[in-house]
Amino acid sequence: MQVFSVAVAGASGYAGGEILRLLLAHPQVRIGALTAGSSAGTRLGDLQPHLTPLADVVVQETTPQVLSEHDVVFLALPHGTSAQVAEQLPDTVVIDAGADFRLTDADAWEQFYGSPYAGSWPYGLPELPVGTDSKQRSALRGARRIAVPGCYPTGTSLALAPAFAAGVVAARDVVIVAASGTSGAGKSLKPHLLGAEVMGSMSPYGVGGVHRHTPEIEQNLSLAAGAPVTVSFTPTLAPMPRGILATCSAPLTDGVSPTDVRGVYEKAYGDEPFVQLLPDGRWPSTGAVLGSNNVQLQIAVDERIGRLIVVSAIDNLTKGTAGGAVQSMNLALGLEETLGLPMTGVAP
Amino acid sequence: MQVFSVAVAGASGYAGGEILRLLLAHPQVRIGALTAGSSAGTRLGDLQPHLTPLADVVVQETTPQVLSEHDVVFLALPHGTSAQVAEQLPDTVVIDAGADFRLTDADAWEQFYGSPYAGSWPYGLPELPVGTDSKQRSALRGARRIAVPGCYPTGTSLALAPAFAAGVVAARDVVIVAASGTSGAGKSLKPHLLGAEVMGSMSPYGVGGVHRHTPEIEQNLSLAAGAPVTVSFTPTLAPMPRGILATCSAPLTDGVSPTDVRGVYEKAYGDEPFVQLLPDGRWPSTGAVLGSNNVQLQIAVDERIGRLIVVSAIDNLTKGTAGGAVQSMNLALGLEETLGLPMTGVAP
Amino acid sequence: MQVFSVAVAGASGYAGGEILRLLLAHPQVRIGALTAGSSAGTRLGDLQPHLTPLADVVVQETTPQVLSEHDVVFLALPHGTSAQVAEQLPDTVVIDAGADFRLTDADAWEQFYGSPYAGSWPYGLPELPVGTDSKQRSALRGARRIAVPGCYPTGTSLALAPAFAAGVVAARDVVIVAASGTSGAGKSLKPHLLGAEVMGSMSPYGVGGVHRHTPEIEQNLSLAAGAPVTVSFTPTLAPMPRGILATCSAPLTDGVSPTDVRGVYEKAYGDEPFVQLLPDGRWPSTGAVLGSNNVQLQIAVDERIGRLIVVSAIDNLTKGTAGGAVQSMNLALGLEETLGLPMTGVAP
Amino acid sequence: MQVFSVAVAGASGYAGGEILRLLLAHPQVRIGALTAGSSAGTRLGDLQPHLTPLADVVVQETTPQVLSEHDVVFLALPHGTSAQVAEQLPDTVVIDAGADFRLTDADAWEQFYGSPYAGSWPYGLPELPVGTDSKQRSALRGARRIAVPGCYPTGTSLALAPAFAAGVVAARDVVIVAASGTSGAGKSLKPHLLGAEVMGSMSPYGVGGVHRHTPEIEQNLSLAAGAPVTVSFTPTLAPMPRGILATCSAPLTDGVSPTDVRGVYEKAYGDEPFVQLLPDGRWPSTGAVLGSNNVQLQIAVDERIGRLIVVSAIDNLTKGTAGGAVQSMNLALGLEETLGLPMTGVAP
Repeated sequence: MQVFSVAVAGASGYAGGEILRLLLAHPQVRIGALTAGSSAGTRLGDLQPHLTPLADVVVQETTPQVLSEHDVVFLALPHGTSAQVAEQLPDTVVIDAGADFRLTDADAWEQFYGSPYAGSWPYGLPELPVGTDSKQRSALRGARRIAVPGCYPTGTSLALAPAFAAGVVAARDVVIVAASGTSGAGKSLKPHLLGAEVMGSMSPYGVGGVHRHTPEIEQNLSLAAGAPVTVSFTPTLAPMPRGILATCSAPLTDGVSPTDVRGVYEKAYGDEPFVQLLPDGRWPSTGAVLGSNNVQLQIAVDERIGRLIVVSAIDNLTKGTAGGAVQSMNLALGLEETLGLPMTGVAP
Repeated sequence: MQVFSVAVAGASGYAGGEILRLLLAHPQVRIGALTAGSSAGTRLGDLQPHLTPLADVVVQETTPQVLSEHDVVFLALPHGTSAQVAEQLPDTVVIDAGADFRLTDADAWEQFYGSPYAGSWPYGLPELPVGTDSKQRSALRGARRIAVPGCYPTGTSLALAPAFAAGVVAARDVVIVAASGTSGAGKSLKPHLLGAEVMGSMSPYGVGGVHRHTPEIEQNLSLAAGAPVTVSFTPTLAPMPRGILATCSAPLTDGVSPTDVRGVYEKAYGDEPFVQLLPDGRWPSTGAVLGSNNVQLQIAVDERIGRLIVVSAIDNLTKGTAGGAVQSMNLALGLEETLGLPMTGVAP
Repeated sequence: MQVFSVAVAGASGYAGGEILRLLLAHPQVRIGALTAGSSAGTRLGDLQPHLTPLADVVVQETTPQVLSEHDVVFLALPHGTSAQVAEQLPDTVVIDAGADFRLTDADAWEQFYGSPYAGSWPYGLPELPVGTDSKQRSALRGARRIAVPGCYPTGTSLALAPAFAAGVVAARDVVIVAASGTSGAGKSLKPHLLGAEVMGSMSPYGVGGVHRHTPEIEQNLSLAAGAPVTVSFTPTLAPMPRGILATCSAPLTDGVSPTDVRGVYEKAYGDEPFVQLLPDGRWPSTGAVLGSNNVQLQIAVDERIGRLIVVSAIDNLTKGTAGGAVQSMNLALGLEETLGLPMTGVAP
Repeated sequence: MQVFSVAVAGASGYAGGEILRLLLAHPQVRIGALTAGSSAGTRLGDLQPHLTPLADVVVQETTPQVLSEHDVVFLALPHGTSAQVAEQLPDTVVIDAGADFRLTDADAWEQFYGSPYAGSWPYGLPELPVGTDSKQRSALRGARRIAVPGCYPTGTSLALAPAFAAGVVAARDVVIVAASGTSGAGKSLKPHLLGAEVMGSMSPYGVGGVHRHTPEIEQNLSLAAGAPVTVSFTPTLAPMPRGILATCSAPLTDGVSPTDVRGVYEKAYGDEPFVQLLPDGRWPSTGAVLGSNNVQLQIAVDERIGRLIVVSAIDNLTKGTAGGAVQSMNLALGLEETLGLPMTGVAP
């Protein structure tokens, strides 16, 4: 059994920590260098007290020398820094959990990120329908560079893409409201992220189409639809550490029945190991997918007003970040896609 | 200074408890009988341990004799039971925190509640625009019977009604996604409401236009618009005891600018003591309105896609139930509308 | 009715915000200047979004000129800064919510705070027994300087002081374990206070007698006992915004019965408006006192091992800080002690 | 590689669900029958929505026939029911997550449980010191019946037993205060366990030595000490789904230094895979052990008053129940003790 050496750059943050949690359970991985910025020189136990088997590993500075000795490097770095690191790792599989290489449209990048466009890499969402007969998976097998999707785009694109791919909804008045646990904001020391502020409170942010995940969601849905799709996307902050619950809706195409829609989703995800279209009567909850790579989905047709509502639940750090990254790594390395990835949530 | 004697039927539940919390701070009220169903005979301190000044009051059975000796009776009873109690209180101001008298359309009642229609009473949401020049307030002054709005209809109707009254949005593809604290479900002993289930988890319910607050929201918006409005309404359960954050959106009418919309909301709520249109750059949070009768609102225009997004935050038990009830009582009794109602939240 | 002008220095923090929340409901207070450090120049609405009536007040810099124009000044400043401010306010009642003037023992101050000792002021815990026949209250009437107790000392001293004053427990192996909501740590931007870290997690800190509230608790209990008392005090951080639950225990003196102990507490607190010795069978909860100035207490005698256990619940920001401060102000100004102070919690 | 067939009786509750979560990741186990009481006939997906791979398994009634076809049966049943089931499974390894067979003292059982004494089985806490040179582990190898410890006894006994075994603390005035997540109370439909009640609130229960885990803790510590130990044990309910943080203290024996104590704990747990004595300066948190079989420990000596304080953190459902059960199963079956057991927490 081949074992791959893996380094994680940005091991001190939430994304890096979750990547390491998953890698520790991966049977074909040997964890090598852990690097960080200001935390270099610290033992990982001081930064990530839950990663017991790595408690005594000393975090190193992020340099090409340290990283290049590995088969795979995960980047969990601030936006705008991945390109420079990656170009010094020509012989390594690089999987970027940041945003730098997600968008295919340079203008959208510049509008939403306001910094030079770095380009685009294969997009690490294997289950995403691309038209009716294909999925994103095929672009990931054997890839040497992968851009891991954002957490919101993961939950929301998987919720709506099958309907767009099948043409059962119209590309207007698409509305997405999503609630995220506060780990989605990272370990940023900002007053509104303090425990006393977030516990017992919900609030929106990035309202009115200004959140950076908006063009990424639109890119995914447009790819599924084969035509431009725009969305109204409102993210909200929920009093929980993890999880994204996304409520996504769009106008039904004339003549489409609830049975038709259910058929579309069963066809899209019936064979997907990590996407569960729930039986009638059950609804997704973020608690049920906590710590797992699962996506729970349920659909409802509001016949009074002719709209489809799809609700999805993911763990923003697992399927929404680190799980998607490891799943993509498996495809890149030719391993079984589900290897090392949890299919059970930690509940209650 | 006139003092009114007040009874509360249903004193053991969350709505009844919150009504009592507010009445304890009301300068022109004397709290009289507290009644309940299965809890009759118990001291209130065992049921509502936070209501210290009433800890030794013994809860009585809900009977017309007990209630009729008061100037005002609040009903916080299960649906379908208010009519029978109210008709035995002909000389009393009756304020019903239940749903029985909210809907003006008997068919809508029967479709969503599946029980005989009881009729409609003046609707206790004083700030609700009725067309462009009037508000619901006028129907409440001196009223002898008042139906307190549902919690979701309070937060969502106030968010969208000004836009409909002013004609700046269209009555199609109106989408509302709201997150509620779990007290909104009452003290029901259901497994999915256990602390271990709800903490750290979000989930939807009543998806696809089936929640009973849907026709009430539509009634309010239609009244504001002067024409039928339908909505896609999805309620979700959030890991917090109290609060509703509602994200509401609708297509903008052609040619309407962000400035126009802001002007509409400033005009609608500039003089309202409990509705705060926040300054640009600030967003509502349920934490900021906890325990208060306030409604925080913010608006955004997504010009890319031509939709208005309005986000509102209320405390579901205060403005969403008990505060609305006491505010309505003040109007019914000819008192100052804000009397005894908290304008500051309990934060953090 | 006389109205006193009041300023708050440190209006941007949690203590300052809670003082303002209470003052807004106080009938004999006019809120004057609000001052802060780095937040000077900002509108209060940006800093304390729950204090709606003060949203447009601009926070000023903390200077003697600004503060001296008031009858009362509350200080909610970092440790070590109060003395300098206070000495420039000779004609003003100064109520310090910080630690600077709490300890009567200069050595204890220097050992635990490591900075020059400023002195001691009358200690703002009116209900604290001083021996068997007296309480701290008498030292506060008409005082011009008051040191507001720490939050942990408030909850724990009230729990154990009656037993020490009455001699029913021994002054050895006194053990206190207390859980606090995270607002107790203030608005400090530290990683372990981020929402994602604290939600769903409990942890201790300051273990082994090193927490700065240890000598303050010992000072209070020694005063009650009339002899030195030492304690083992362990504070823990709980996943909630507010509240302190303190579990306090000490060895019973020989021959003392459970009835004796109950009698001691009934005598100590039977007439106290803010301290509730709960009836048998009920236990305190921080939820029940949220936002109120109440102290809930319950006692148990473990006859198997001869120890008394007293559990108390307070809101750390209200009775534990701002409520104690306002209660002390009422005594200092000769007002009714309970004026403007909430006796009902905000629950659930 | 041998694979053992395993049944779980009581698959609908929290303990049963966590046992299944762990078994799903165990490489030498095949999950067989799942049984329950009133939930028989239901698909597991409706009861345990996080156990995706078992979603379609229909829960059966708990009968000897169904269970006896397995190599191992886990019992997660109400107290008082295990004996009857176990006696009909003579050829099966039975691991009881309930309390029935934990206590060796029939009188203690009857005093605390008030029902007939069933006897005692080998106690499933492998790391527990038994005197200075032995551990509980040896009694578990090859056992055919195992009593899984209670959750509180697990966290607290491991915290204090080394000190008692080494004689560095005295067996008087031992005080334990522990905070548990609400899953510790099971899926019981009781009002005080509703989400709205527990979020944002802490409260004690079973104060004064009446909690049923008290004799179990005393049994463990007495075994370690080789002499009777009594404890003051106060459990509290914390606003989190999972986790126990236990603060345990006892008087130091004369002449014992902090270094001595640290040596005792290093010796006791230096080779234990699941018990981590943290480096100086770090403190346990329940968040860091969530979902793992780990026990985090830290010790402090309060030299001012001569007491040892030990703080432990476990996940009550994992190490405190299901993890302990699976670990015991591994020993009973002669497998590697750590097999299938997570050593990393799910954080943040």
